[in-house]
Amino acid sequence: MHERLVLHEDSRSGNCYKIKLTAALLGIELKQRQYDILKGETRSHEFLSRINANGRIPVLEIGDGASARFLPESNAACWYLAHGSALIPEDRLQQAEMLSWMFFEQYSHEPNIATLRFWLQFVGRDNLTEPQTAQLAIKRASGGDALAVMDRHLADRTHFVGSALTLADVTLFAYTHVAEEGGFEIDIYPNIQRWIAAVVKTPGFIPMIG
Amino acid sequence: MHERLVLHEDSRSGNCYKIKLTAALLGIELKQRQYDILKGETRSHEFLSRINANGRIPVLEIGDGASARFLPESNAACWYLAHGSALIPEDRLQQAEMLSWMFFEQYSHEPNIATLRFWLQFVGRDNLTEPQTAQLAIKRASGGDALAVMDRHLADRTHFVGSALTLADVTLFAYTHVAEEGGFEIDIYPNIQRWIAAVVKTPGFIPMIG
Repeated sequence: MHERLVLHEDSRSGNCYKIKLTAALLGIELKQRQYDILKGETRSHEFLSRINANGRIPVLEIGDGASARFLPESNAACWYLAHGSALIPEDRLQQAEMLSWMFFEQYSHEPNIATLRFWLQFVGRDNLTEPQTAQLAIKRASGGDALAVMDRHLADRTHFVGSALTLADVTLFAYTHVAEEGGFEIDIYPNIQRWIAAVVKTPGFIPMIG
Repeated sequence: MHERLVLHEDSRSGNCYKIKLTAALLGIELKQRQYDILKGETRSHEFLSRINANGRIPVLEIGDGASARFLPESNAACWYLAHGSALIPEDRLQQAEMLSWMFFEQYSHEPNIATLRFWLQFVGRDNLTEPQTAQLAIKRASGGDALAVMDRHLADRTHFVGSALTLADVTLFAYTHVAEEGGFEIDIYPNIQRWIAAVVKTPGFIPMIG
């Protein structure tokens, strides 16, 4: 890939890490531009009008100058980078199964596990709003449910789809391997632990803060 | 497609409707098996062990008997059905943009707009738990933000990606066109209204309750 790629990111975010990990596994060069989400830097007028009207990072900027395109949503950016590579299976059913896990990640996993990590690790328990505090217990339970679904699926498998690493593994890995920072116990999921150890050994792997 | 396809669904769910709409637009035959989510029928032991360990519908059952595969996550089921059709653009960037809107739908749209519709229309305001009640205001605001992002994107476009109907339109249409049932005003989004009118006129379109 020869086009210019810039990742608009906050390096504490697992959603941003997914994209950097995908690029590293594929040997793709990504430039980076940092934002501090705690300071609201993704809610500025310039960010909202030019980069992402939804006010979120990561956003993958593709191409140069006036013709640059801005692609939000972490899992879509991973898809763009991995297009045509072994990280996306060619088989129709496997491709849909991979996307199924990626939608699971954004619906049942990230809003619980990543959100609790963000609230407890970065915002701070004492700074949460009342509606946030009211959600702690349900997010704790739902995040645990998501991890249990993953652990059960991995009982007789090395990877989430087929028998090799795909974007399902890359995207689920991002927040699972730091779930303890959100107060989740990982020790009780032996299959997840085995899978994490295998992902870390993948050639080209980079850690979250590098 | 000649394999047997069974949609495990609750017909009140927009996530199930997306899949039926995709199948109808493509002339694919789907059998259906009904569940009542309000009665917890997707949390039975049989459902959890055989159909979806995550306890959610829709699930697309593909194939027969012991070799049948079960595909959860509405947007992944739409992807499976539309594989190789005009509903998925071939262009790398357009494909990623389409998935970006589908992840937006599951992260920023459905948890607010579909959830408020479910709570207010089906569970009932007076039957909500305390944590649910504590989230009404934030879900109202976040759902409005998602609709505003969509309306702005549609200002100079007929469809979400490129200039023809894709799965981005199909999946966003499902809960947007019934957003009023969740207490959202649609009248204030002229571009969304124009887009809804266009989607309804697509050849093969079927309404939500048929």
